[in-house]
Amino acid sequence: MERSPLAPAAFPDLPPVEGVTLRVARARYKEWDRCDLTYAELAEGTAVAGVFTRNVCCSTEVEMGRESAAGGKARALVVNAGNSNAFTGYRGREAVEQIRAQVSAHLGCAADEIFVSSTGVIGVPLPLDKARAGIEAALTAQPCGWEAAAQTIGTTDTFAKGASATAMVGGRKVTLSGIIKGSGMIAPDMATMLGYIFTDAAIEPALLQQMLGAANRRSFSCITVDGDTSTSDTVLLFATGKAGNAPLVRMDDAGADAFQAALDDVCTQLAHLVVRDGEGAQKFIEIEVTGAVSDESARRIGLSIANSPLVKTAIAGEDANWGRVVMAVGKAGEPADRDRLAIRFADKWVAQSGLAVDSYDEAPVAEHLKGRDIRIGVDLGLGDGQATVWTCDLTHGYISINADYRS
Amino acid sequence: MERSPLAPAAFPDLPPVEGVTLRVARARYKEWDRCDLTYAELAEGTAVAGVFTRNVCCSTEVEMGRESAAGGKARALVVNAGNSNAFTGYRGREAVEQIRAQVSAHLGCAADEIFVSSTGVIGVPLPLDKARAGIEAALTAQPCGWEAAAQTIGTTDTFAKGASATAMVGGRKVTLSGIIKGSGMIAPDMATMLGYIFTDAAIEPALLQQMLGAANRRSFSCITVDGDTSTSDTVLLFATGKAGNAPLVRMDDAGADAFQAALDDVCTQLAHLVVRDGEGAQKFIEIEVTGAVSDESARRIGLSIANSPLVKTAIAGEDANWGRVVMAVGKAGEPADRDRLAIRFADKWVAQSGLAVDSYDEAPVAEHLKGRDIRIGVDLGLGDGQATVWTCDLTHGYISINADYRS
Repeated sequence: MERSPLAPAAFPDLPPVEGVTLRVARARYKEWDRCDLTYAELAEGTAVAGVFTRNVCCSTEVEMGRESAAGGKARALVVNAGNSNAFTGYRGREAVEQIRAQVSAHLGCAADEIFVSSTGVIGVPLPLDKARAGIEAALTAQPCGWEAAAQTIGTTDTFAKGASATAMVGGRKVTLSGIIKGSGMIAPDMATMLGYIFTDAAIEPALLQQMLGAANRRSFSCITVDGDTSTSDTVLLFATGKAGNAPLVRMDDAGADAFQAALDDVCTQLAHLVVRDGEGAQKFIEIEVTGAVSDESARRIGLSIANSPLVKTAIAGEDANWGRVVMAVGKAGEPADRDRLAIRFADKWVAQSGLAVDSYDEAPVAEHLKGRDIRIGVDLGLGDGQATVWTCDLTHGYISINADYRS
Repeated sequence: MERSPLAPAAFPDLPPVEGVTLRVARARYKEWDRCDLTYAELAEGTAVAGVFTRNVCCSTEVEMGRESAAGGKARALVVNAGNSNAFTGYRGREAVEQIRAQVSAHLGCAADEIFVSSTGVIGVPLPLDKARAGIEAALTAQPCGWEAAAQTIGTTDTFAKGASATAMVGGRKVTLSGIIKGSGMIAPDMATMLGYIFTDAAIEPALLQQMLGAANRRSFSCITVDGDTSTSDTVLLFATGKAGNAPLVRMDDAGADAFQAALDDVCTQLAHLVVRDGEGAQKFIEIEVTGAVSDESARRIGLSIANSPLVKTAIAGEDANWGRVVMAVGKAGEPADRDRLAIRFADKWVAQSGLAVDSYDEAPVAEHLKGRDIRIGVDLGLGDGQATVWTCDLTHGYISINADYRS
């Protein structure tokens, strides 16, 4: 698959995180010549938080990960690529239990401190022998860097994705480095967004969960490629505590704000990278909604626009079709008043007070739409609620990837 | 635009409805050589019921139509094609008021007994002079048949759409004939489904509204092309009373059941025709959901499947990708249990109890998927709720129509 035209020039230079050791191996879940098993060993005392798909047909990995994350402790992460192990019933569960038993025996920890994710084809139980041999190879492999790990968790991604940030917490510099995979879905693979963020900050699990939840609402929950939700989507945040700061316990502890800002930054960067690898994407679209009755209402309206096939095809066609934006606002099921609605492309208002603007000059809008990064603004004129969401255009490439194919 | 490959061979032979006179004229709302104004005159005493888009950014026509339908009386219908008059503020309202004034003066009735619909480009107020001249031409035109009217209300439709049924009500044969337009949306036109059903039955307005609401829930509310909802969608049902039956007042009146069944039939036929003209459609897809906790829950799950780009592209690719169906069930936000879920294509079960069936033979499924009419079944194993929804596949044709275009 060709590298997305929206990809950054290169994988960024991510700093290491003390207490995190990465290794990759070949489990050969598919007939391919690449590493497909990622193993991250985490220092004792590592705290964990997680957000997971709300798809009720979720995978065993998600079910068990959700339970384990509630425990707040982590010692290792295993990511299988090439087989999602989803919709495989008790046989899928056996595979996850085997992996957790094998790794926890190696580390001498509880099985529920081992986090497992799988991504790839669905309906085929993860083969126990391949998983066992892959783990064994990973446990003794040389440690690797972020880019190798980011490549190994990927399936149909056209580029490896990573982001980092730092913050000062209690006089100590703490580091956050994260990797993510996801690009929509490709037949017959079940698409999945899997994101892992590692930090050396010391943060209590309950606060870590609260912070990840907040960052998630402003980042991963604000992106969409096709509105379809994987059965395996997972974001985990691991905090090893090796930076030596006094552990953060509450949001009003000194430095918590700074950490939250850095976490928001990393999550937003990672979320954007997923959109930039959207299937068939030729344009990155930012939709800013203001004047809604609440932030949540603004987010829903933004996603209604971002998920509209008619809006997404209009952008693909470089067509300033603001009528489709009106339609998508109106169908969101959220408060809106047609006669207060205003719409802009970049900074150029095209409609205000429920009418096309009199002086509308299409030339600068048409010029903006020819670019790679498109900005749409919607003001509802009702209140202070606002949100920004991100998506990509809907192109022939999406159809080719998802339809011009027989499993 | 080429005729849809899913279109019926010919326009059906629709019986006339006593008390309804159809005429068409050229208002020249666009630079085209075709009739674009449809006028239906209705006998005195005609009752009316309507269902309208829930899009909160709806057109003036929808707002005024909703108010008028509440009055229960109708004398005429005017449909403008080529300009939707949506998102045009007070100037759009002026146009509708002018049309109602002109026609009501001609008929000597109240303005709110005139129903107006418009479909086509948005954001451009309907030109008052063209509307006036068009109406004038229509009032004196020769009466025409159903097919001419069905063609005239169409915009981007690739074929004219009509359906009829009869029922015995109180010893009298009553006739229902209906026409509809809609095929998704085409830039820069705002897509719109406009449907009009005429009957000579005598039915009180309140019951007529109840019956249309019930039929709508089982037909128009169960179809989707792209999940986008027009700002102008309208279905009106006119009952002239000329069949001479004793007027139906309540659902338990003799013959009401028969009329409801005939109305359901006509609405379902018309709804299917819209899907069969879906933009770029190559396959007609029926999704039957059973075992849900309620009928409404089943409908929502069905529409989640029907709106999933990944399901629709899989069908376009003739790929029995049941994992995407699982995903779409799970994201619907409705009760579902992964381990009770069963999925079939045509009559062939591919997954049961949350697992691929052991004996799964893909050959008959692959054969079924090569056809034009695709059937997907989902059983949730939870309750008695059921629903059937209809959609079409998502193809390069959809992208071509909606993106390969600059306004």
